[in-house]
Amino acid sequence: MSNERAYNFSAGPSMLPLPVIEDVAANLANYKGCGESVMEMSHRSAEFKAILADAEQNLRDIMNIPDNYKVMFIQGGGTLQFAMVPLNLLRKSGKADYVITGTWAKKAAKEAEKFGDIKIVASSEDSTFSYIPKVNREDFRPDADYVHITLNNTIYGTHYPYIPDTGDIPLVADMSSCILSEEIDVTKFGLIYAGVQKNVAPSGIAVAIMREDLIGFAKENVPTYLDYKIHADNGSTYNTPNCFSIYVAGEVFKYIKDMGGVPAMHKLDVEKADKLYDYIDASSLYNCPVNKEDRSLMNVVFVTGNPDLDKKFVAEAKAANLHNLGGHRSIGGMRASIYNAMPMEGVDALIDFMKKFEEENK
Amino acid sequence: MSNERAYNFSAGPSMLPLPVIEDVAANLANYKGCGESVMEMSHRSAEFKAILADAEQNLRDIMNIPDNYKVMFIQGGGTLQFAMVPLNLLRKSGKADYVITGTWAKKAAKEAEKFGDIKIVASSEDSTFSYIPKVNREDFRPDADYVHITLNNTIYGTHYPYIPDTGDIPLVADMSSCILSEEIDVTKFGLIYAGVQKNVAPSGIAVAIMREDLIGFAKENVPTYLDYKIHADNGSTYNTPNCFSIYVAGEVFKYIKDMGGVPAMHKLDVEKADKLYDYIDASSLYNCPVNKEDRSLMNVVFVTGNPDLDKKFVAEAKAANLHNLGGHRSIGGMRASIYNAMPMEGVDALIDFMKKFEEENK
Repeated sequence: MSNERAYNFSAGPSMLPLPVIEDVAANLANYKGCGESVMEMSHRSAEFKAILADAEQNLRDIMNIPDNYKVMFIQGGGTLQFAMVPLNLLRKSGKADYVITGTWAKKAAKEAEKFGDIKIVASSEDSTFSYIPKVNREDFRPDADYVHITLNNTIYGTHYPYIPDTGDIPLVADMSSCILSEEIDVTKFGLIYAGVQKNVAPSGIAVAIMREDLIGFAKENVPTYLDYKIHADNGSTYNTPNCFSIYVAGEVFKYIKDMGGVPAMHKLDVEKADKLYDYIDASSLYNCPVNKEDRSLMNVVFVTGNPDLDKKFVAEAKAANLHNLGGHRSIGGMRASIYNAMPMEGVDALIDFMKKFEEENK
Repeated sequence: MSNERAYNFSAGPSMLPLPVIEDVAANLANYKGCGESVMEMSHRSAEFKAILADAEQNLRDIMNIPDNYKVMFIQGGGTLQFAMVPLNLLRKSGKADYVITGTWAKKAAKEAEKFGDIKIVASSEDSTFSYIPKVNREDFRPDADYVHITLNNTIYGTHYPYIPDTGDIPLVADMSSCILSEEIDVTKFGLIYAGVQKNVAPSGIAVAIMREDLIGFAKENVPTYLDYKIHADNGSTYNTPNCFSIYVAGEVFKYIKDMGGVPAMHKLDVEKADKLYDYIDASSLYNCPVNKEDRSLMNVVFVTGNPDLDKKFVAEAKAANLHNLGGHRSIGGMRASIYNAMPMEGVDALIDFMKKFEEENK
């Protein structure tokens, strides 16, 4: 038992801003004096409608989402999005092109193969996804219904250093692990989706931001819940949404706005990541296997080269109040996820620990 | 602004036990001294695994769920279950029989029609769903893959006074608005599902309790997230679940256990409902349109017979700290949802208000 909060480097669910948590806790039994907890609120009540409308408006403001895009809060996480994307967007040729940059991109493509003709146009699997392939307009099938990318790769610590040019083909991007960490020109995308449990809110919703003219093409035999049109036409309340996650997401959007918006978050994210990567690159114990220009600001992957030493690192870090530094169970090693809510002090504490560990284990 | 909590008669999301809310609030920034909020916890961490295992075990204990049933926590609410049921259980003849006792039963049947040969074997729509039809084994097609019922009808305030005998045909029941309010013989059902936002937890999960031998029949083209086997085989963590709702659900299961289990809840529910129905039946202003033996313990529907007066009632009740007494937008009138977490004091306050309103409006 401790009153001290840990620095939690989990890849997701992950840290939330402490002022948001404290405000949620203070309002938990009686939200702003309305007599109810948000956990108990009818999704059709005036109070919750205001929470939902504010959340959407604040997200629109901080991401500069144009009016011809719909914003939806949908349950089922990225996994359900992997199915919804093809079930809604395979609307003409039934073809879609995927770029494979990690485990989640692969899963997205595999799910899409259930429903259409899917082509892998590029993959970095040959080098354990340590880089982002260059793809150009000519790489895509001209009649593809959409192109799918995973902008940030949580497991392998990579991030696209460019947005692929797909011409007239709608570009779909999974931004689960980088949304709100960088300014994005939404108009370059047909659909952006992101599970909220990394950079936004407690798990249990995905945000979908979709160009209106792409909505409404799900076939009749698509399950109702998997039709974007149902969510868009009903303002995310066709059925009872995950009200609590939407509420906390809205509080985080407000917090980001108050902190100076996405550019301010990005500046801090760059400072945190640069400090950590610079330390790793200068170290004689630690090594980051990721191609420099493709490195993620959010997920910093590193290894000692000795799997037993990696395990020791993760265990001793946990004891030092630095949680969840193990790499994904599929690749091992270490991973420090430093999303927006991770303060600079957490990165400093991690580097101090790494120095001490290096000293003790050389 | 008020420090007073309201009596919230919402049909869902709805009241949670205050001791649970207060405990969640006290642990929100730092769960039991582990340094993290449950909202921030990796779903693969030891801490969350314990929360999930405890939640499942406590639900098994209070519902007497046999070992040959799997318990799953799935996102997407009842609406996604409406699709998952046929997509998983239409496994031989492709036929299923539905009993229509309200709006949600109708929606369940309509969704199933996308995927198979659905027969409506009985319906009480002819009398605005004011009663539960009697159905017998002979009413079902012998080769039906399953029979679907909605045990409690939230909008119309009805509840099955019996469990239909379906012989060897698996019985599927939506128990969203009555789960944990009465002892249920789970072995009579092939699948029980319930959105948690009425009697269990904040919105964003459905609990599914499914006989093992019925799992594993989804066709290959079913979206991965909609295959019960994926959830069953991975202990509800194939992908990131709605961790926070699972946590609060687990706290509510523990609370019910501590209070004496489902029989104790049922006893209190009967006392609350009897008191309210007795008052309504004796009143000269209010009328309950529901057939006496089919009345719900959870959702008490009543009208004055004058829609304008009904609206006045709902508005004045809200001002008197009695929230969400309006009937469903499809039928109007009044509805008092008195789930497990509504204390007797709430029912007493409602009856006092009804008396005063009757006095002022006769």
